[in-house]
Amino acid sequence: MEFDALNKSGMTNLFSALGKSIELPQGIFYWLGRAKTEAEINATIGSAKGPASEIIDGGGDETITFYLPSMQESFGGLTSEETFPYAPILGLPELRAAWKGYVLHKLADARDRVEPCMTLPVMTPGITGALHVAAKLFIDRDEVVVSPDRFWGNYRNILERNIGARIETFPFFDGDRFNVQGMARKLLDTLQDQHKAVLVLNLPNNPVGYLPRQETVAPLVEALVNVVEESSKSLVVLLDDSYEGYVYDPEAAQRSIFAELCDCHRRILPIKLDGISKEMLFYGGRIGAMTFGLPTSLEVDRATLESELENKLGALIRSTVSNSPRPIQTAILKALQKLDITLAERQRVIDVLARRANLLRHELEKLDCPPLKPLPFNAGFFCFCDIEGLSAEKLADHLMTKYKTAVVPTESGKINGIRVAFCSVPEGQIPLLAQNIADAIADLTQKE
Amino acid sequence: MEFDALNKSGMTNLFSALGKSIELPQGIFYWLGRAKTEAEINATIGSAKGPASEIIDGGGDETITFYLPSMQESFGGLTSEETFPYAPILGLPELRAAWKGYVLHKLADARDRVEPCMTLPVMTPGITGALHVAAKLFIDRDEVVVSPDRFWGNYRNILERNIGARIETFPFFDGDRFNVQGMARKLLDTLQDQHKAVLVLNLPNNPVGYLPRQETVAPLVEALVNVVEESSKSLVVLLDDSYEGYVYDPEAAQRSIFAELCDCHRRILPIKLDGISKEMLFYGGRIGAMTFGLPTSLEVDRATLESELENKLGALIRSTVSNSPRPIQTAILKALQKLDITLAERQRVIDVLARRANLLRHELEKLDCPPLKPLPFNAGFFCFCDIEGLSAEKLADHLMTKYKTAVVPTESGKINGIRVAFCSVPEGQIPLLAQNIADAIADLTQKE
Repeated sequence: MEFDALNKSGMTNLFSALGKSIELPQGIFYWLGRAKTEAEINATIGSAKGPASEIIDGGGDETITFYLPSMQESFGGLTSEETFPYAPILGLPELRAAWKGYVLHKLADARDRVEPCMTLPVMTPGITGALHVAAKLFIDRDEVVVSPDRFWGNYRNILERNIGARIETFPFFDGDRFNVQGMARKLLDTLQDQHKAVLVLNLPNNPVGYLPRQETVAPLVEALVNVVEESSKSLVVLLDDSYEGYVYDPEAAQRSIFAELCDCHRRILPIKLDGISKEMLFYGGRIGAMTFGLPTSLEVDRATLESELENKLGALIRSTVSNSPRPIQTAILKALQKLDITLAERQRVIDVLARRANLLRHELEKLDCPPLKPLPFNAGFFCFCDIEGLSAEKLADHLMTKYKTAVVPTESGKINGIRVAFCSVPEGQIPLLAQNIADAIADLTQKE
Repeated sequence: MEFDALNKSGMTNLFSALGKSIELPQGIFYWLGRAKTEAEINATIGSAKGPASEIIDGGGDETITFYLPSMQESFGGLTSEETFPYAPILGLPELRAAWKGYVLHKLADARDRVEPCMTLPVMTPGITGALHVAAKLFIDRDEVVVSPDRFWGNYRNILERNIGARIETFPFFDGDRFNVQGMARKLLDTLQDQHKAVLVLNLPNNPVGYLPRQETVAPLVEALVNVVEESSKSLVVLLDDSYEGYVYDPEAAQRSIFAELCDCHRRILPIKLDGISKEMLFYGGRIGAMTFGLPTSLEVDRATLESELENKLGALIRSTVSNSPRPIQTAILKALQKLDITLAERQRVIDVLARRANLLRHELEKLDCPPLKPLPFNAGFFCFCDIEGLSAEKLADHLMTKYKTAVVPTESGKINGIRVAFCSVPEGQIPLLAQNIADAIADLTQKE
């Protein structure tokens, strides 16, 4: 493949060395494709297939992918053809289309803006798979990736330990708001030494369950536009939208800022990363989706550009996992086909989490405990409390030992605090959880 | 983690630069682990959990991972807890133990030899995931990987395009036997420039459906031992056992040579890579397994060595896909728990494929078609025919256009031939398939 459209659009310049070089050879897929439409005898397919009657007593003449009938029992609601055959490298076409429809449903207010930019989503092994593929495509060893200073610990595994990049951070909050100016300054600093910058935004955030207020969205986008204008360089924005939809505050942005980033500037490339772990409460399913917001002003043939990009993504997926599991993809497709039921069922969970979040905020506010500084939270699965004047790890240990209360401490750079996963604590335990934290802090500070 | 045992055992020297540096920080897992046994209030878990009654009408008080009840319909034979929660990074413990038992079942004749060497299998996203993780751990950019000259096309994507290594080959056959001496010579050549060599063996092979005869196994292992003795260097052997068990010839080795490679030399490290795609006829399931045969003579504490190795593997998996899908793992576990039924069902498929393979061999032998040189085949899913004197791609095109018969051609280096996937061609079509190939060759050679 020549990648003329990627080159001409300037996108190639955003790629890592691997992203520039990698390519999925089309040879075998060319022959598989022709076989599908032209062949009467098809000896190209590397799966065992034949008449059902050959392997199943009472089976018919129809050609099936051979499988173990007793294995089907685990997938009672699916047919064997929905379960056992390989899925295409980039995902089931019907699921890709349905996920696109679902993203547009979520961003319905900005549909006219988003739709012309949006690529057909590509399925990956969970949000981790989406981050890994994006990182491989865009980020080189020793390159700086910009993130707020509160981020999911696995970013270090993916971006630093695996890719060899370096995460540089800005403080998440400016007072009780998302730190738009700090983000812009860090990006401009980074662009002094790099021809492009990659920004990762996880909103709602893990470990800080915070989503910026609606009024912050426009300034945030404007700040990013200023960054690329002022630097005359380019920006790739990886939107880790794992917790999209888990919002407990009417004043917060209710959905991904992918909508506003689409077509905000020809040198800003937003990439929306979704996961079913939280989105569909299917942690063990391991499907994620990558959707690009390609600026409409790129002066190349749109279909060619997208097929070249899909070749790059296909090469990365084929060379790491080949493809993603079919029965999970089928199950998600079925859930999207009855979206009203799916969203109604999910709303019950969101309502439970909203009650817990609001109760936890209320209980933390009631405490008279100066070393405990809960950061603002209004979304997602967690709240994070900075701890002043004592070690977060010592606190977590004491909380566990004396109060049988488990939290995850972080001591890293300037950050010293505990993550409280209200997502997994029943409402009835939340007042005691808050009180135990305060009591443990009192124990430790009185001792000193 | 200090990796003292890996260092002292010499295994670290076999690792790539990434393999040497990568590490999975234990912080969060330490706290999650303590929480499991010590906590009464557990605010560490990043999944939404609570009493079933909170999200399901008529649900009870028991704590569950929240899920979408209508999604469960696709997994009719599984409970929600078997479907929706995350699986551990390295796989479900019960499945890892059961897969170990299954490998030992397959290698039952060599159990006493294998068991002391064998690690607990680690679950990966299919055989591709297993190859990718192994490649990342052991192979550096620009390093030579040795393979027979007939190999699965995706090796180029994984090893060359993704990792940046270089595949160097030896001719698969010496006459009608596996080319043991050619393999040894290529390894010795490679070891002149490298401190270790990585060999990939895929037996039964894709695209050549060949498994060495039983009488070849001992000389093959002996040749590898001679290589490490003569060079005083080390060898990592990646056994791509995707097609293990699909054997149609009583004189062929009936199972993986992992058995013989275990403990054959302290500087030979065999790694067995399994997949459920073929093994359990579950292509779309995307689970594979990696099992190391650690020499018993390594003078380090065995449990420590294995836990350090698991840390490295965990870091690679966590930073690419996080973990593998739970419902698929559960389904495989259930299949292994009723192994007699599973293997009986699979035997019906093996019998079908054996009949096809034997018929295809017979039909090809009957043809009077000198340019067509079928390579020996006795196992797996494919046969491969070298083509002399005309382009394999032209032949495939003509076969498709005139005879509606689809095969996959290869023209690469010295190889010019067609892969015939008898696995997906019903028995009744096989005589015509063979005849069409001969007729197409006759058409093209008469024209010239």
